[in-house]
Amino acid sequence: MKLNKVVLAYSGGLDTSVIIPWLKENFDCEVIAVVVDVGQEDDFEAIKEKAYKTGASKVYIEDAKEEFVNEYIFPTLKAGAIYEGKYLLGTSMARPLIAKKLVNIAKKENADAIAHGATGKGNDQVRFEVTIKALMPQIKIIAPWRIWNLKSREDELNYLAQKGIDIPFKKEESYSMDGNIWHLSHEGLDLEDPWNMPDFDKVLKITKNPLKLADSPETVEIEFEKGIPVKVNGQQMNGVELLKTLNKIGANHGIGIADIVENRLVGMKSRGVYETPGGTILYYAHRELEYLCLDRATLHFKDMVAIRFAELVYDGLWFSPLREALSAFVDKTQEVVNGTVKLVLYRGNIYSAGSKSPNSLYIKDLATFEEDQMYNQKDAEGFINLFGLPLKVFGMVNRKEDEEN
Amino acid sequence: MKLNKVVLAYSGGLDTSVIIPWLKENFDCEVIAVVVDVGQEDDFEAIKEKAYKTGASKVYIEDAKEEFVNEYIFPTLKAGAIYEGKYLLGTSMARPLIAKKLVNIAKKENADAIAHGATGKGNDQVRFEVTIKALMPQIKIIAPWRIWNLKSREDELNYLAQKGIDIPFKKEESYSMDGNIWHLSHEGLDLEDPWNMPDFDKVLKITKNPLKLADSPETVEIEFEKGIPVKVNGQQMNGVELLKTLNKIGANHGIGIADIVENRLVGMKSRGVYETPGGTILYYAHRELEYLCLDRATLHFKDMVAIRFAELVYDGLWFSPLREALSAFVDKTQEVVNGTVKLVLYRGNIYSAGSKSPNSLYIKDLATFEEDQMYNQKDAEGFINLFGLPLKVFGMVNRKEDEEN
Amino acid sequence: MKLNKVVLAYSGGLDTSVIIPWLKENFDCEVIAVVVDVGQEDDFEAIKEKAYKTGASKVYIEDAKEEFVNEYIFPTLKAGAIYEGKYLLGTSMARPLIAKKLVNIAKKENADAIAHGATGKGNDQVRFEVTIKALMPQIKIIAPWRIWNLKSREDELNYLAQKGIDIPFKKEESYSMDGNIWHLSHEGLDLEDPWNMPDFDKVLKITKNPLKLADSPETVEIEFEKGIPVKVNGQQMNGVELLKTLNKIGANHGIGIADIVENRLVGMKSRGVYETPGGTILYYAHRELEYLCLDRATLHFKDMVAIRFAELVYDGLWFSPLREALSAFVDKTQEVVNGTVKLVLYRGNIYSAGSKSPNSLYIKDLATFEEDQMYNQKDAEGFINLFGLPLKVFGMVNRKEDEEN
Amino acid sequence: MKLNKVVLAYSGGLDTSVIIPWLKENFDCEVIAVVVDVGQEDDFEAIKEKAYKTGASKVYIEDAKEEFVNEYIFPTLKAGAIYEGKYLLGTSMARPLIAKKLVNIAKKENADAIAHGATGKGNDQVRFEVTIKALMPQIKIIAPWRIWNLKSREDELNYLAQKGIDIPFKKEESYSMDGNIWHLSHEGLDLEDPWNMPDFDKVLKITKNPLKLADSPETVEIEFEKGIPVKVNGQQMNGVELLKTLNKIGANHGIGIADIVENRLVGMKSRGVYETPGGTILYYAHRELEYLCLDRATLHFKDMVAIRFAELVYDGLWFSPLREALSAFVDKTQEVVNGTVKLVLYRGNIYSAGSKSPNSLYIKDLATFEEDQMYNQKDAEGFINLFGLPLKVFGMVNRKEDEEN
Repeated sequence: MKLNKVVLAYSGGLDTSVIIPWLKENFDCEVIAVVVDVGQEDDFEAIKEKAYKTGASKVYIEDAKEEFVNEYIFPTLKAGAIYEGKYLLGTSMARPLIAKKLVNIAKKENADAIAHGATGKGNDQVRFEVTIKALMPQIKIIAPWRIWNLKSREDELNYLAQKGIDIPFKKEESYSMDGNIWHLSHEGLDLEDPWNMPDFDKVLKITKNPLKLADSPETVEIEFEKGIPVKVNGQQMNGVELLKTLNKIGANHGIGIADIVENRLVGMKSRGVYETPGGTILYYAHRELEYLCLDRATLHFKDMVAIRFAELVYDGLWFSPLREALSAFVDKTQEVVNGTVKLVLYRGNIYSAGSKSPNSLYIKDLATFEEDQMYNQKDAEGFINLFGLPLKVFGMVNRKEDEEN
Repeated sequence: MKLNKVVLAYSGGLDTSVIIPWLKENFDCEVIAVVVDVGQEDDFEAIKEKAYKTGASKVYIEDAKEEFVNEYIFPTLKAGAIYEGKYLLGTSMARPLIAKKLVNIAKKENADAIAHGATGKGNDQVRFEVTIKALMPQIKIIAPWRIWNLKSREDELNYLAQKGIDIPFKKEESYSMDGNIWHLSHEGLDLEDPWNMPDFDKVLKITKNPLKLADSPETVEIEFEKGIPVKVNGQQMNGVELLKTLNKIGANHGIGIADIVENRLVGMKSRGVYETPGGTILYYAHRELEYLCLDRATLHFKDMVAIRFAELVYDGLWFSPLREALSAFVDKTQEVVNGTVKLVLYRGNIYSAGSKSPNSLYIKDLATFEEDQMYNQKDAEGFINLFGLPLKVFGMVNRKEDEEN
Repeated sequence: MKLNKVVLAYSGGLDTSVIIPWLKENFDCEVIAVVVDVGQEDDFEAIKEKAYKTGASKVYIEDAKEEFVNEYIFPTLKAGAIYEGKYLLGTSMARPLIAKKLVNIAKKENADAIAHGATGKGNDQVRFEVTIKALMPQIKIIAPWRIWNLKSREDELNYLAQKGIDIPFKKEESYSMDGNIWHLSHEGLDLEDPWNMPDFDKVLKITKNPLKLADSPETVEIEFEKGIPVKVNGQQMNGVELLKTLNKIGANHGIGIADIVENRLVGMKSRGVYETPGGTILYYAHRELEYLCLDRATLHFKDMVAIRFAELVYDGLWFSPLREALSAFVDKTQEVVNGTVKLVLYRGNIYSAGSKSPNSLYIKDLATFEEDQMYNQKDAEGFINLFGLPLKVFGMVNRKEDEEN
Repeated sequence: MKLNKVVLAYSGGLDTSVIIPWLKENFDCEVIAVVVDVGQEDDFEAIKEKAYKTGASKVYIEDAKEEFVNEYIFPTLKAGAIYEGKYLLGTSMARPLIAKKLVNIAKKENADAIAHGATGKGNDQVRFEVTIKALMPQIKIIAPWRIWNLKSREDELNYLAQKGIDIPFKKEESYSMDGNIWHLSHEGLDLEDPWNMPDFDKVLKITKNPLKLADSPETVEIEFEKGIPVKVNGQQMNGVELLKTLNKIGANHGIGIADIVENRLVGMKSRGVYETPGGTILYYAHRELEYLCLDRATLHFKDMVAIRFAELVYDGLWFSPLREALSAFVDKTQEVVNGTVKLVLYRGNIYSAGSKSPNSLYIKDLATFEEDQMYNQKDAEGFINLFGLPLKVFGMVNRKEDEEN
């Protein structure tokens, strides 16, 4: 099959480096490499060079960090979305954004196809392709891992060698990783057996090993406006700065390691270890503030919405009508989520050290034992009588008199 | 008003000690004191004596520890129910059980009324009374705190003095506490301001201060059958022993402190600090096993059920048709929750150190990158095409061609 | 107790007519009668006169029909909210609006209190008072039915006679009714026994008896913009006109009778018969359009939201943060709910006669049996293999080989 | 590819009649035709003959009517599951049962593969295959429609002719139908345009055209035990008889026609018309009884469960852990759903004519306006004060004093 121009999601790693010549060989096409900077710790100039060296005709380096933080991470934070109770969705949120950038460049470049380096067993292929379908329904999508016969790192290195491309890639297998400003994930090798505990010294790349930390508690204060963090320790910051700051602080205290056997969308379970130092602090702090500012009915329903929201994000359905409508729900609830949360970080743990809000629904006098004007204890009797009436009637009708309870 | 016999939920504390003479004065009745042992650390002989001394005509000491653990705690654990994401429902689960014991004794003693010492501002009055209404719809309920004019500890002490009852109670106010085999709760004093961090040395009674722990990781292994913990470190135990064992272990590592501003059922927010060392370990371990044994659809729906289950338990609706039906759902899901979970406890934290199950749905070969018979990567294309079809159609119909994404 | 000025929700019926002199007698206050026109079929001039005659110092007639339709009815219609599967919330939606009008007048008039004529057993007292608390937390609320000793229509008539007020009210009991532009409700008398079928000739006031209709099908075409009905049979109308038009059409065909034993918020079940001719047509038509325009994920989640939305509206929680946030969700989903629905009305029934939309997600070629470009049948195999993988794994792990299925 | 023995879901229609020789040609195998009698109106002897004539080596006619009604239909009825608010899941429930029968015979016959005649665009392929995967994970599945090149009825007839098989099949296209004891579905032809109203005279096969009915109301009385219908008009019947009886009655009155544009699992919308006369009566009656017997909390949660239950059944996930756990929930709720419902059927409509239950939670005296012992109107004030407290606090904190409401 002959194509004209293919836009490729390029990372500079071995997989996507192999894809460039492979695309050219198989589709006789020009390959445009697109690197989306979502905060991964990479040398983008070196990556650019690598792309050209492997045959790309053009390379885009797109700085999407601010967009990532403001348009993807913060909406998810506000939703309180956590996949299966542990995973903070770092990779899941990044994929639709990357795909959107690919689409924009494909339109601009008038490309025939978009290619990506995700394997045929994971969630990322779904996240990439579903987003592309949503935003550019007609374009062809190429997923080399589902097509070619390369089955291992060795196969890939041989392929590059055959093509005469000389770039030094490590030979040994390592954990499969994906990183961005929000998180770093690890899969594979010994982690594949859930009976193995991760060797933190070996696995962790940004967070300090929480089992080997010195004795140094640290207090951090975060201020939110409408559910969005805007200040750390009294200092106004934009989203990117703020997250970087909290990443550094959190990493120092071994905060934010999640080790989970999760259900992939494609029908299997897999095991991952995630480092999300700043993100974990933000989720904790945001929740503390919601305890003050949201009423019971809203908080409880929102907790249910969070489950669905996380599912949608995990499944790559960011650009779906349901995710967008749930965000409208969430945003409305966040209008009153303003205030400050103080946390103590210590040896892998976060402790609440205080929270306050101009919108706090916690009224001290209501909860104390003294009589007051807002709350008359005598009201409780009527409340209980009506609240308990359905059970009373149910008991009268359906419980036998002589039944031993 | 004249009553014949009143059954009182008696704890031996100042409040219920005042209630005995107050009931006799106001209702000219015999008072039967019922102490339900749900694992609180108390000297039941001393309490019995105190009850008689304050005027009880009869005292029951009911050992309900096993029933509490097996019939209330474990069903809630299996449900994964956590109120508002933090509170493990220690007091909420105990109240219906205590109320049931009161009802049984009221029936046996042919009493006219049941009295309790819960205040008019809290959840416990609701939990007691709703349960009584459900199980013994016609009996009269007396809640002295909503009736009398005593407004402070001092008033209460004066009342006892007036009645010539000489029992030494502390004069100073302290945290309001409620304890049982599952947890110990703390409210009041400086905790009433959410901007205050709890002084762990002052507040914690069973858990070691996690900010001052020595360097001593400990591994614990828990085995579950149908979602119920049956062994610790290889040793078979009944529920009560098992929980006591884990409480001791957890407390040593500063595990299980929850500090929350929660929404009471009676319309206000309040702030509590909870110690639940063994319970926190059990929830963590149980969840780890569910990651292995439950499929995605079941796990996600069960997470939603857990929210409602927690709400019902918190609200005192244990003996409600909905709670019972949700438990039927939960029990069905737990048939495959068998296996062993290993945890490392260290300085207030729990780390997964491995889990395994004969019912594990995690199939190593499925998640790895090698081709295999169970999973054909080529299937992913078809999956994505159909899974993404609704978004593709939505995009074609509703997204403008020229729209900047 | 002495009050200065009380604002009363006045209807011109016997109950509120008795309340005026009763308030003056008991609170020595000026009474301002407020009649909110939400479309009930009443002679407002006669009501005004009656209010003065019974002692009101001032009478407001507030035309709130447009506000009712646009700000309360249409948002509920868009949500698809139906209480317990049958009740279209006619009274529930009107109460918060009426309460809001009372609050506005109370503020303007600088009143001390707001009074209403709802009984102590129903939902309306809750709806009125909760709204007043939300919008004007400090004002005193008076609910005479929970205070006075009048227990019957006869008592009320005697009270008026005592006061020398001579207004002709019917002596005999009738169904308790509540009407507005959306619906008319009926309770009481023979309806109190759920084993009785309503005598439609006796009960129905606006709808023709569907058991006695002539043979005359009628087609009606309704056009929606963003989920809001804007045209009937091609003719643009404002909400009030449109609803009146559909009420007339629906009533002619015996459409929209709901007979339900419902769960009141105050803990008891009650039985009501509702006439909602135009509303029933609108709900049906709106849903038909959603079948075309909403994707599966959105439709299914919205159906769950509709249950909670209905609960909130029924419970009088219109002015609650959760209802407002759910409306934000709903409004987002409705952006694509544009198009036309054709219905045949015939003898109490509604039949779909066609629907179309510029945002329709129904693509004829997709569903037909011919091969096409959008849908490749071969994709189905991959889809099924991955979609079915969790069950396959579950079956392999947990189903015994020899098990007889 | 060579196979030994293939078990085929055989219906006697053109599609599956073509599949027999096609399987033999392509896999050089023996074909065992399995006809599962789920109540479709067919001449099974004629079908058997046809199977042999087209080349089957063996034919099973399995009477699964009782199992279908008791183990599939009634559990779904008890759940109140309706797909997207209209579709009563007739085909969805039958497919897993048929697949289970195929699996049992495949095991008994030691077959290599199971084949079915569902197309590559519909839900049925998923339902068949997912069930087979769940119950017999290793067996090969053959779906000829996704493989062969026959694209039309004409192609199929030509293929038979080529093979020298002479069976008279109609040449013209007709609605695609699927029938069983619960329902009959129609798709295709003019129905593919949702702007077309179905021509009832042409489409309906069992139900009388409700637009052309004579004037003849009929009363029917149904008795339930634990949510299961056991008597019609006072006569005890087994499930099959009962359903046949109600089908006849309902069909006579034009009851149970559903016309819906539904979301298929495979990502597209499709339009179907369903006839479910008896089923529609049963759903209506069952719900009426639940209004009496279920408390508010249970009913509302169950309504949410019903949405998920319907989704699972529609998606073919009958043999999934979640469906089974939801059924455990449902069964628990149904313990109190006992009693009798009387309905009037008239010209396409169902009217409630009365319901009663020994477990009815409707207590007449509670809902009437007279004072009584169970309900004290004065309790309402306390109830409202506490129920409304969160909104009052929210209003005080978040609503501006001067805000125009």
